[in-house]
Amino acid sequence: MELLEIARRRKTIRKFKKDAPPLNDILYCIKVAKEAPSGMNSQPWRFLIVSNAKKKKEIRNICEEGEKKFYKRMDEKLANWVKERKITWEKKFLEDAPFLIIIFSDRNSPYYIQSTWLCIGYFLLALEEKGIASLTYTPPNADEIKKWLGLPSRYRLETIIPVGYSNEDKRKEKRKEIEEIAFFETL
Amino acid sequence: MELLEIARRRKTIRKFKKDAPPLNDILYCIKVAKEAPSGMNSQPWRFLIVSNAKKKKEIRNICEEGEKKFYKRMDEKLANWVKERKITWEKKFLEDAPFLIIIFSDRNSPYYIQSTWLCIGYFLLALEEKGIASLTYTPPNADEIKKWLGLPSRYRLETIIPVGYSNEDKRKEKRKEIEEIAFFETL
Repeated sequence: MELLEIARRRKTIRKFKKDAPPLNDILYCIKVAKEAPSGMNSQPWRFLIVSNAKKKKEIRNICEEGEKKFYKRMDEKLANWVKERKITWEKKFLEDAPFLIIIFSDRNSPYYIQSTWLCIGYFLLALEEKGIASLTYTPPNADEIKKWLGLPSRYRLETIIPVGYSNEDKRKEKRKEIEEIAFFETL
Repeated sequence: MELLEIARRRKTIRKFKKDAPPLNDILYCIKVAKEAPSGMNSQPWRFLIVSNAKKKKEIRNICEEGEKKFYKRMDEKLANWVKERKITWEKKFLEDAPFLIIIFSDRNSPYYIQSTWLCIGYFLLALEEKGIASLTYTPPNADEIKKWLGLPSRYRLETIIPVGYSNEDKRKEKRKEIEEIAFFETL
């Protein structure tokens, strides 16, 4: 399949079916992702695959505590944006998705944030290629999750990606026209 | 072609042939890239395509001035890394590559760095799909380039991606084994 078709088909999904994709498919996607370039080829990304129900529940609890606080201090623009999409502080997908892929970066590497997110771009396309739905969710209290996982301070939690089969029928959010974001010779 | 094959084939290239890829191929890659998800779907990425020889030369000059200073204050680890690869302050590829794709992010958007680099991940894979070689080059004095281009302060120069056909026969830098970067249930 052409990459443009995969990229166009890929959309953010927040509701997942119970049945888990084969672990091998997830590993395939990590194999794609780890081919990404990185500053000094330091490959600062780490993937933690969580499928244990009790662990997912605890991660959900911690994130929701952070979300409740975050919803109180959210600016109006974001508050309207989430309201329109019926998004709330509840993060059911953290328990429902068969796998949570928690992605960390290593602060000791040059351009660790940039490199890791470039790698996440590879990862999302690979998931879509395998028909696996995903969402890049960044908890407002990422450090608390990291602490609960007992990780050394050099790791930064970049995002939690719940993955599984889509249980949601929705349109992809509209993208800008190419003329709005690409310019020739001068911006 | 399978995504894993595209991802594995893609490597950083610093030497380019003179002949330019079709502009339509570059636009195809931007079309792929702009399908990426972003914080609040704000699509903070902007692509500036530069092919004008005088402009490329001036960009090279500005970057090389920055590089000369940077090479003086580089730490030992990086100094050795570049030396082994025969990389110097000279950035010939900025003039030789038929196109420079300068990618900016919009600071007014949530997670603008993360979203833009995720989008760059999409972009690099699309270039490889089209057989176009690339390099993510971030000048040490990115702000001077931005100033010379006369861009408003809300834009942040994330990277300059010289693109074209490879004129270099080299091995891809080795990637870590999956066991070194992916973990199950606990890191």
